[in-house]
Amino acid sequence: MVGSKFLAGAAAMALLAATGSSAWADEGMWTFDAFPAAQVNKAYGTNIDQAWLDRVRNAAVRLTGGCSASVVSPQGLVLTNHHCVIECVQDLSTPQQDFVKAGFYTKTREEERKCPGQQAEILTTIDDVTARVNAAAAGKTGQAFVRARDAEMAAIEKAACATDPTLRCQVISFYRGGQYKLYKYRKYSDVRLAFAPEFQAAFFGGDPDNFNFPRYALDSAFLRLYENGRPVATPDHLKWNAAAPKAGEPVFIAGNPGTTQRLLTQAQLATLRDLAYPYQQQQRSELRGRLIRFSEENAEHKRIALDPLFGVENSFKAVGGQHQALRDPAFFGQKVKEEQELRARLAANPQLAREIGDPWKEIADVQDDYAELYLPYWRLESGAGGGSQLFSYARALVRSAQERAKPSAERLPEYADTRLPLLEQQLFDAKPVDLPLEELYLQFWLEKSREYLTADAPETKVLLGRESPQQLADRLVAGSRLGDPAVRKQLYQGGLAAVRASKDPMIQYVLAMDDDARKLRTAWETRVTGPTDRAAERIAKARFGVYGESVYPDATFSLRLSYGKIDGWKYRGTTVPPFTYVGGLYERATGAEPFDLAPKWAAAERRVNKRTVFNISSTNDIIGGNSGSPLINARGEVIGAVFDGNIHSLGGAFGYEGDTNRSVSVSTAAITEALTDVYGQPQLVAELTGRR
Amino acid sequence: MVGSKFLAGAAAMALLAATGSSAWADEGMWTFDAFPAAQVNKAYGTNIDQAWLDRVRNAAVRLTGGCSASVVSPQGLVLTNHHCVIECVQDLSTPQQDFVKAGFYTKTREEERKCPGQQAEILTTIDDVTARVNAAAAGKTGQAFVRARDAEMAAIEKAACATDPTLRCQVISFYRGGQYKLYKYRKYSDVRLAFAPEFQAAFFGGDPDNFNFPRYALDSAFLRLYENGRPVATPDHLKWNAAAPKAGEPVFIAGNPGTTQRLLTQAQLATLRDLAYPYQQQQRSELRGRLIRFSEENAEHKRIALDPLFGVENSFKAVGGQHQALRDPAFFGQKVKEEQELRARLAANPQLAREIGDPWKEIADVQDDYAELYLPYWRLESGAGGGSQLFSYARALVRSAQERAKPSAERLPEYADTRLPLLEQQLFDAKPVDLPLEELYLQFWLEKSREYLTADAPETKVLLGRESPQQLADRLVAGSRLGDPAVRKQLYQGGLAAVRASKDPMIQYVLAMDDDARKLRTAWETRVTGPTDRAAERIAKARFGVYGESVYPDATFSLRLSYGKIDGWKYRGTTVPPFTYVGGLYERATGAEPFDLAPKWAAAERRVNKRTVFNISSTNDIIGGNSGSPLINARGEVIGAVFDGNIHSLGGAFGYEGDTNRSVSVSTAAITEALTDVYGQPQLVAELTGRR
Repeated sequence: MVGSKFLAGAAAMALLAATGSSAWADEGMWTFDAFPAAQVNKAYGTNIDQAWLDRVRNAAVRLTGGCSASVVSPQGLVLTNHHCVIECVQDLSTPQQDFVKAGFYTKTREEERKCPGQQAEILTTIDDVTARVNAAAAGKTGQAFVRARDAEMAAIEKAACATDPTLRCQVISFYRGGQYKLYKYRKYSDVRLAFAPEFQAAFFGGDPDNFNFPRYALDSAFLRLYENGRPVATPDHLKWNAAAPKAGEPVFIAGNPGTTQRLLTQAQLATLRDLAYPYQQQQRSELRGRLIRFSEENAEHKRIALDPLFGVENSFKAVGGQHQALRDPAFFGQKVKEEQELRARLAANPQLAREIGDPWKEIADVQDDYAELYLPYWRLESGAGGGSQLFSYARALVRSAQERAKPSAERLPEYADTRLPLLEQQLFDAKPVDLPLEELYLQFWLEKSREYLTADAPETKVLLGRESPQQLADRLVAGSRLGDPAVRKQLYQGGLAAVRASKDPMIQYVLAMDDDARKLRTAWETRVTGPTDRAAERIAKARFGVYGESVYPDATFSLRLSYGKIDGWKYRGTTVPPFTYVGGLYERATGAEPFDLAPKWAAAERRVNKRTVFNISSTNDIIGGNSGSPLINARGEVIGAVFDGNIHSLGGAFGYEGDTNRSVSVSTAAITEALTDVYGQPQLVAELTGRR
Repeated sequence: MVGSKFLAGAAAMALLAATGSSAWADEGMWTFDAFPAAQVNKAYGTNIDQAWLDRVRNAAVRLTGGCSASVVSPQGLVLTNHHCVIECVQDLSTPQQDFVKAGFYTKTREEERKCPGQQAEILTTIDDVTARVNAAAAGKTGQAFVRARDAEMAAIEKAACATDPTLRCQVISFYRGGQYKLYKYRKYSDVRLAFAPEFQAAFFGGDPDNFNFPRYALDSAFLRLYENGRPVATPDHLKWNAAAPKAGEPVFIAGNPGTTQRLLTQAQLATLRDLAYPYQQQQRSELRGRLIRFSEENAEHKRIALDPLFGVENSFKAVGGQHQALRDPAFFGQKVKEEQELRARLAANPQLAREIGDPWKEIADVQDDYAELYLPYWRLESGAGGGSQLFSYARALVRSAQERAKPSAERLPEYADTRLPLLEQQLFDAKPVDLPLEELYLQFWLEKSREYLTADAPETKVLLGRESPQQLADRLVAGSRLGDPAVRKQLYQGGLAAVRASKDPMIQYVLAMDDDARKLRTAWETRVTGPTDRAAERIAKARFGVYGESVYPDATFSLRLSYGKIDGWKYRGTTVPPFTYVGGLYERATGAEPFDLAPKWAAAERRVNKRTVFNISSTNDIIGGNSGSPLINARGEVIGAVFDGNIHSLGGAFGYEGDTNRSVSVSTAAITEALTDVYGQPQLVAELTGRR
């Protein structure tokens, strides 16, 4: 059973107060310009005001790559999760020096090392640009609508930010097209790693414990923002509070939840349940099997596959939980009921109903096109390359060359002028390319494409010609020089002529399939994205008309604030308390992977305070993308870093269920204890606590 | 859309004649004692009579291991599929001599080699024992019912066959408990391999082409029945007809379809769709990934994993098709409609309705218990060992020792006296055990068990203790001597004392978990199997009451006859013709695996007649288990061997859709051509054709 999102805000509070239940009171991923502070203050006795919100917003960090973080010292020190920096840790490692396994430690600032391709962003202002975007897209349908809308968004971004290299502007769609807002960020392109514990300490319990609270994971790390070669001064940081948190105390999470699907229609949810998720999960499952076996082949394979395997397993479990929620008839039935209620209320307002029409039917009608185009669009366009970095480089080089030859407004939106700086950073930064993994990814992508599309499909012939997936993958990886950043830079700067003249087999391969891939994108935008988004806008209008502005938008990897309290939960007669303690780590350790202690923790057993709170469960409504977000107390101090949810949180993609949905954080208490007694990092503790 | 199975037989014929459509006329997997010969003769102008049926039945072979076959010469020669003998071919191979890759050829009978553990069975009589089984189980429920029923079935089998080692008796449940019949078989325990082509010729196109007609596969092989060291004389064989078949001609398939689920209620189908299939498919998908990567590690891994990988991929595709059918709202809706129609008709007969009660609700009520018990029952009991042969040996040794200490009627049914001879053959026959695969299977089973049950579940602790899956798998496989048939024989003959005294780690492991596994089996039989089967019996009664005897039972790996005609199909505007030709093989070959020609075929290109019909599509209603069945013309001659269905046949588990469901056979014409011009086997051709 899932709580009705539409009762959130004032109406929900009133209802819940009346029934005496606190369930679902804590629902919502609220934007900073529409946080229901008055209701929260009333319910929790807090004093959230604009100054509080501004202070938190100024310390909240978005990390490109899909994570959140927070500034926690005046010298640009940033707290996030270990799993948010593991790609960086791996990039900095070599077969001879494995920081993932051993941890990454610094004694001085000079030892801090830049994370390739990493950018950090802090939100400064929010402006409503709905009218401008709507005007530009007025009267258009299908792909013409998609392109006009995207071009206007890019134009707004460019006008607001393009002249200042320290800013990033992004127009973000809320309520699935119901609103468009311009988010302006201060950006930092030199982000350095300051501290990361051993993978084994950060991810104790491994995949079995992932999403299964109680947990005992030090999933935390520190980055530092640099500019002009020096740490950035950050007076607007969160105060570090390492005192023991209390059960029941109100807590807030400021971060960037990635994607929720709470506003989808039942037709869209059925397509996810019956078509997209089954394909995605069967693919992930097989890839997982290949990566596990690959990892077992030798130590170097284990080292290079560690982060990719973590990613696949994490997604598999998260999407698996979402899929299970959709397969639960009670859960799905609740979504249907919500839709029926909205439609019934709309029907009771004939004028609005006439204006809105029947967007639910329009979206339902799109589902046949979705099903027809889904596989080819996925294989050749949205999922092309299957995770191969060389393929990604090649496609970015080919398409950026093609697109930069056009005016910014006419380009594919990911190559608009405002998007190029980050793309360039990612293309030009040196980063290891692991060839055995590249081959595995490419071969797997090609094999699954042939399987899903069938051997005789024209798209399969485009992908494979007469080669086998293995032959083709071998040839492309063995022959490509795109792993060298100098080669990439040269091709990028040489533009379309250089790209076309390139003999690099990966470039040639991407060029050869590009027309077909673009045609599928056009078909998808014309027949799926366009009509879906047009209809969704009208559903958003209907929702505003019926429920007013007291609803929050679906997550869009933009800054949100969620509220709640430190709390465990009950499930089938079992009560799960909200805290674990450091001592529990030692009790849970069996010595066998993934329940083996990191050596430094084993050595420190007699030093550490086993009564320190380790991980914390709280009622905040979050989702993937929130990883690394600060857990904040009512005074605005950071008391933890969110890194997980419990197993019941996975249905949260579609609806928040307050009885059992819990977010999971690692406490600042445990981090402080670990820095002090396990890792011997007094300088970091001094910086965090201001005690020198 | 699926055709209503309940309109099959006379009523369906009348209806279809009236509408002028031939769709679904060919539905049904009919038992030999209830074949609708009159209707078929009328529809197809054939002359099927009792003598025809007896002749075909006497030549139809069931192969333990899950396949079908037919006797095709007077000297015990048996035609089946290559994929039905591949395990034997692999068992006879060594790293030095790989018959899977090279093919297995004989010039004389002396070169024919026994297939380990293989038994062949020919049905001789069918007797109705419904009254006896019902009487024994009368008034019992839950596990008591299951055990009383199974004990009576075993007692009937023993009384009818136990004194004659050349007979096998089996009481088979039809219509999910609506009828019980005693099937008496003449059995042959010495089955030898006479001919198998190269895997590459038998399975040209590999997994991509599997279930995707048009195909070009020589999926055929020959076995020979032996007794007392000599070929068995088989006057009742099918005549070999290698002439070109004709589109539209009536054809019959006699074989043993394994399992269909056409009589399940919608509650049961929903459980398959939402619970069992998702878990099974995600497990298969990951195992597939591990096996593929394992295969790529070296030539020996590739050799030993070839058959297991084929099996996993075949099941993955087959069950995937079934799952897709259940996810199709139109398909599922049709199943719901069928159930509603039966219930409406039942309600119109108040006396019968009172007698039947509401078994649909009873089955729906069982689904919560199913969901609760499914994972532990699967992991510890029904799927324990995950495919490890050493584990299977150990469990058979432990349990047969425990059970043989009791009277036959009180044992687990798989250890009743009548079941022991085949078990002993399988335990005592020498058979290679591939240790790297054993480790892979065990580790995978343990890892998935921990994942599905969660790390803290008591069942996980039973399975793992404090070891990791990898440690435990390594220890069990490295220490076990059960790969040696002499060790197995000694333990078996030593009985419970020997088993308990054994220091073999696999035996000790199985002993240690056995109480927990048996408890889960008891819970499953008490709370799931018992009430389900009891309710299903009454649904069968309702069905007989409403539709009479003109319905066929679900498949149960027992001999059935299906009828139809040679025919292609139309799908989304494309017409697929019913034949492929040998020339098409050469056109389809790309040189890249799995579309590379076997060397003998490449060398024979100029000799072979490219206009020979290769593979044939026909409308017969079949399913897995039918593999190897003879495709028979109206005169009772064999014209092919069934080896596949088209992609649309996969929903056939739940219902036959006559417009597109097609079975696929390899023609006797192509086999004869191959024996003559590719493999140089004139002695086999002479034996088959009677021309010497």
